[in-house]
Amino acid sequence: MTIPQLRSVLIVGAGLLGTSIGLALRLHGIDVRLIDADEDTAARAAAHGAGTVGVQGLTSPADLAVVAVTPGATAGVVADLLGRGMARTVTDVASVKERPRAELAALTTDISRYVGSHPMAGGERSGPAAARADLFLGRPWVLTPGPATAPDAVEVVHLLARLCGAEPTQMAPVEHDRAVALVSHAPHILAALIAGQLIDADPATRALCGQGIHDVTRIAASDPGLWRGILERNADPVAAVLRGVRADLDIVIAALEDGLEETGGPDGSGPRPAAGAASAAVTAALARGVEGRRLMPGKHGAAATPYLTVSVVITDRPGQLAGLFAAAGQVGVNIEDVRIDHAPGRPLGLVELAVQPGSAKDLVAGLRQRGWTVHD
Amino acid sequence: MTIPQLRSVLIVGAGLLGTSIGLALRLHGIDVRLIDADEDTAARAAAHGAGTVGVQGLTSPADLAVVAVTPGATAGVVADLLGRGMARTVTDVASVKERPRAELAALTTDISRYVGSHPMAGGERSGPAAARADLFLGRPWVLTPGPATAPDAVEVVHLLARLCGAEPTQMAPVEHDRAVALVSHAPHILAALIAGQLIDADPATRALCGQGIHDVTRIAASDPGLWRGILERNADPVAAVLRGVRADLDIVIAALEDGLEETGGPDGSGPRPAAGAASAAVTAALARGVEGRRLMPGKHGAAATPYLTVSVVITDRPGQLAGLFAAAGQVGVNIEDVRIDHAPGRPLGLVELAVQPGSAKDLVAGLRQRGWTVHD
Repeated sequence: MTIPQLRSVLIVGAGLLGTSIGLALRLHGIDVRLIDADEDTAARAAAHGAGTVGVQGLTSPADLAVVAVTPGATAGVVADLLGRGMARTVTDVASVKERPRAELAALTTDISRYVGSHPMAGGERSGPAAARADLFLGRPWVLTPGPATAPDAVEVVHLLARLCGAEPTQMAPVEHDRAVALVSHAPHILAALIAGQLIDADPATRALCGQGIHDVTRIAASDPGLWRGILERNADPVAAVLRGVRADLDIVIAALEDGLEETGGPDGSGPRPAAGAASAAVTAALARGVEGRRLMPGKHGAAATPYLTVSVVITDRPGQLAGLFAAAGQVGVNIEDVRIDHAPGRPLGLVELAVQPGSAKDLVAGLRQRGWTVHD
Repeated sequence: MTIPQLRSVLIVGAGLLGTSIGLALRLHGIDVRLIDADEDTAARAAAHGAGTVGVQGLTSPADLAVVAVTPGATAGVVADLLGRGMARTVTDVASVKERPRAELAALTTDISRYVGSHPMAGGERSGPAAARADLFLGRPWVLTPGPATAPDAVEVVHLLARLCGAEPTQMAPVEHDRAVALVSHAPHILAALIAGQLIDADPATRALCGQGIHDVTRIAASDPGLWRGILERNADPVAAVLRGVRADLDIVIAALEDGLEETGGPDGSGPRPAAGAASAAVTAALARGVEGRRLMPGKHGAAATPYLTVSVVITDRPGQLAGLFAAAGQVGVNIEDVRIDHAPGRPLGLVELAVQPGSAKDLVAGLRQRGWTVHD
């Protein structure tokens, strides 16, 4: 096994991901070549600093080709690059992995130089203009090699992930698709369904929306076309997760329909033995939510966030947040996280500052001393 | 109709809401009396500055009694206060309204001096220690008077809401319960069900959790017992919303099971006419999510947030966030909102600063000048 080298990289598809990879690799002085079905897009990515358009003058084959096209087009482009010997190793960055792999296997006999991969990064914006060199900083980048994949090809894609600042990790393609169905695709659909319920609500009802439903539905604002394309290629794993949610939902709905109260209503008529079981079912579903949430990795992959929250009242006058953080800086306390709790309909809000437990007292005292309204 | 006056207020139940109301009213010099089934709790609320324990020396009846006990105990306490003539007007702050009203009507003939109400505020913490005078700042406070309610009693509760800094609004009790089922109770259950799916996932899968699922499940971390109590009294409206979600979920699951692809799989066998309908169904569900999200009131009740986002790279060195906000302050740009996009497993992150469109350019230039890595 030789030490992997990346002197030249061919990027096919100059959207958000392709252009961002180009920008990151250019920081390492790598010769990056950009190809896109739309010439303007490739030109814009190049103007952004992500590489050079086309393969003219490239010592062929490139060390690596990165296919950053839609999931549906991925297998065809990879097969073409392999067939024409355009690169020693080929990877793709589609957010589903098994379907493109199977499609490729149907098109090509030797797929030993292909390594599927998925950088877990993106955003609500797309296209080369939204690209940035550090899009992948600290993010998982899942590699999905198969039994036939050449080990040094895997090494090259590992190196790509590292050069982009990501954390490479490995999974089987099917395992990857099941994982993203659970942590990303199914939650996306459910967020959309919850947000969709608001369409038929009257404005007075919608005016009661608070931070909770805002957070629950934030990801539902993304482009439906893009997501349809993702779901199209990961339909079975997503359907499996959604069936699990539906089974739990059925239990909760049945329990709510049974009624959770020990007595029969406003007139208090008689005991209702079924209520105990219904109530237990709802409590169990809620408790599972607390447990699942606890198991979710926090900042730095830690299972729990041991921070204390300090709440500060702000108004909407210019510079309030800036002034608050300047004050925190003067106190010498590091802010670990921050959340603004908006006051709907009014120019007032609360800023919640998460700090190390040992720092909370100093921060509260220091901010109060500087005239801030603080809760500890 | 006389001008409403609040010289004396009796608060029954010194938890988060009761104590916070006491703290707010004390700022206006009102004589606040605290009663709690647990004497220690009342004493802690009084020590916090929320009023005086007990009714000794109070010129009876009080101008207003605020019942801040569990939804299940509310009607009984209200009936008792009305029956004993303890206050000229009685309100409660339970987060469901129709069931307590019906229970009260079964206990008491004259409910003209009772005004149900619900301040839309709270948090993940409970008890008098978490209380604060500005808990209600800028929040909706829904009043639910009925046809028999005395107009001046409504005026008194309006005044209470205003004195607490909230925005009073009115709805029928049933209408209120339907609204909170939609914007709060049902989303809470769905967040819990999504988080609950993570329990059976392996750690490698959970390691892929990003900001999206973090936001979707944040509210699922709340106390299950407290939520069971809320759902118990609003079971029918919550079940109705959940049935709506389930109907939409059934459509999406069926579409995913049908398959969204125009061809039959990796071998590309033949056209699949059903795929068009399935694909359209999924796209429609996603598009409804985008539309519902767009209809949700944003900061200051505005339907849309016209802000631009400026992304800045931070490391975990102490003072990074403070330094960033200090720099923004020097540039003279007001930060409208802030979100930290954590980099799981790595001490790096992106801070997204929302600013007025006219300020984005200045902020980017000013921060870059000060050595920050900024994307515009």
